[in-house]
Order: sequence, then C-alpha cells, then structure tokens
Amino acid sequence: MRQFIIVGQDVPTTDEFSLDALTGAGRMDLLARCVTASFLLSHGIREDVRTFLVLDNEFTLRFEGSELRSLNPDERSTAALIRTALGEREEAIGHIEVETSPGVYLSRRDFETVLTSAGEDGTVCQLHEDGTSATETEPPTSPVFVLSDHHDLENPYAEILENNRDQRVSLGPNPLHADHAITVAHNWLDTGGFGR
Amino acid sequence: MRQFIIVGQDVPTTDEFSLDALTGAGRMDLLARCVTASFLLSHGIREDVRTFLVLDNEFTLRFEGSELRSLNPDERSTAALIRTALGEREEAIGHIEVETSPGVYLSRRDFETVLTSAGEDGTVCQLHEDGTSATETEPPTSPVFVLSDHHDLENPYAEILENNRDQRVSLGPNPLHADHAITVAHNWLDTGGFGR
Repeated sequence: MRQFIIVGQDVPTTDEFSLDALTGAGRMDLLARCVTASFLLSHGIREDVRTFLVLDNEFTLRFEGSELRSLNPDERSTAALIRTALGEREEAIGHIEVETSPGVYLSRRDFETVLTSAGEDGTVCQLHEDGTSATETEPPTSPVFVLSDHHDLENPYAEILENNRDQRVSLGPNPLHADHAITVAHNWLDTGGFGR
Repeated sequence: MRQFIIVGQDVPTTDEFSLDALTGAGRMDLLARCVTASFLLSHGIREDVRTFLVLDNEFTLRFEGSELRSLNPDERSTAALIRTALGEREEAIGHIEVETSPGVYLSRRDFETVLTSAGEDGTVCQLHEDGTSATETEPPTSPVFVLSDHHDLENPYAEILENNRDQRVSLGPNPLHADHAITVAHNWLDTGGFGR
C-alpha cells in the first residue's frame, strides 16, 4: 500500500468556504489536486492507495482508494467532497471516524496520531528538496509519504515528522508543488525506482 | 527549450463557458492543469518552456514561460486566462497572433501548423503508453511533447502526428492523465533521464 499524508497548515475546518474561491480557502485547490494526484490514473483509480488530509491539525480526512466512488479529476468536485465532509464535523467525535461519502472518512485526529498510525505499516518518507536523490534510492515497498501545503512544515509538524521519519527523498533538482511531487513519487514507484 | 502541445479535441472556441463548470467545457479543467503543470515549480516558473493549447483544431493558444506574469496554480484562474483569450477571437486573423494577456497569444493556427513549426526546433515526442520506456531512452535536448486531452488522438490529429513524430515514449507502466504526464516528463528531463 502507498500512503500519502498531506498537511494543510491553515485550511478551513468548517464547510464555510466557497467552491468559487478555493485558493483563498487555505489553498484548498492544492489539497484537492493532491487528492486526485494520489489516486487517479487515466482510466481508473489506484485502489492500493490511502491518502490523509490533515486539516489545521484538528481534523483528518482519510480517502481510501479501494472504496472511493465519486472522485473526479477536477479541483472543484474534489473540494466539494472535502466541504461535504466538514459539514459533518459535529458527527466526528474524538478519534472515531464518520464516513461522509463513499471511501471518505472524517475524524478529529491530529498529525502525530495519523503519522504514527500510518507509520506502523510503512516507511515514513518525507519528500523534500534536501533529501537523498530518488535516482539513488531504492523505493520503499510500503511508503508513507508526507507532504506539506504551499509552505514548508512548521512546528509542531516539523518536529513530529523529524522524530518519525525513516527517509528523506528528493525527487529531482527542482522544488515541486505537493501535487506534482505526488505524481512523480508514484512514477518513481511505478517504474521501480526510475528503472534502476 | 521544452515545448508542449496539448490538443483539446472538443473544447469551446468561444468565451461562452462557465468557470464554475470547467469539466463540462470540453474538459477545460484538464487543459488548465496541463498549462500549470508545464510551467509551475514550487517557487517559480519554468521560463524555458513554451506550451500550446490547440483548441478544436481551429484556434491555438501559445503560453510563453519567459513572459508569463499572471499564471497561478489553480484551474479556475488558468481557465480564466483561456476564456479571456477566446474573448478576443475576432482579433485573431489568420496565423497572426494577438497577445491576450502577458505571455499568452491567440491565433487561428491548426494542429499541423503548430506541430511542424515547433518541430523545426526540436524532437517531436509523443507520450504514449505503447512507446519505448523512458527509463531506457535518452531524453531529447529540445523536446516537443504532444499530448491529447482525455481521449486518444483521433484523425486528423493522429495521422499528422504519426507523420511528424520522432519518438514515442512511455513514462511508466500506468496510463496517466495528460497533466500528470507533463509533470513526469519534466522530471524525466530534470533528472537527466531518471539518473541514467
């Protein structure tokens, strides 16, 4: 299984944002593209993927590839899935998840809880421009990729990640947007380490 | 220089489409993501890139990396640039271009005209799942990548491409959306052929 944890550091945690202004809603456009990049192939879905969106360290959305039914490639419809989920925030009590649409689960989990839980099943791999080059690194079998939104991870996220990180990998010489990094990371794994 | 030609086979050629319904406008969401994927890095723009959107084989938009001033990562604002350009379609007479915003040019050029012109300066490379594996191919110095929208290229596009193609390259075992393919193609070039 491939897991992705995307941290939105200043995103809304209510459904009071407009689908017409996603950029202004804590870069909800970027988070939506991260979700679609993690799952969508040209003619199908990557079922063996699990993606978490950590929202302002208060809520977490879990997207489960084998269960998703209504994920489309555009930002707006994916942001709508997120907004629908946040509309049910009162149903999410503690760490217990509520399924807000097929394969989409909301809970009150913070980054540390999500990361340590996901890390039990896999190799925690930070994608970062200062990491070891992917071209010289064997891709992990069960990676847990951690990415930040449009800003570098600040504390407490940075410290928690440093304490739990197994690898830090750079996908190339140019710093990429998180959604593009996810696409390249998949390709790194798909090609078995760029054909190493 | 890296050039990308993206063919929209059934997109609107007027500005009468809604920014709230990009998917229904010939998958304008995908075309917008193709544009941003071709240019945007995390903290900057790839200046040495030129991207063409061929719209229904009637109009062509040229985006020039060294001149772009208002390209943002979200679909909506990029689609707005396209809509603004199409709003000036009456100004585009024959092959003469009109600049509709900084670094964005509209003309009445068809696919063949665009492809043969771009191909004069570079290696025409079709990204296709049946091509030679990128992991076994030296990346061209001045590639002209040709991609289709959500459908395979039909005629006349397919025939024109076959007559002008220098390479056909597969980026990995899984067929990708065009915007994801652009991101991976950049990484292929950035890493000098995945570190070959």
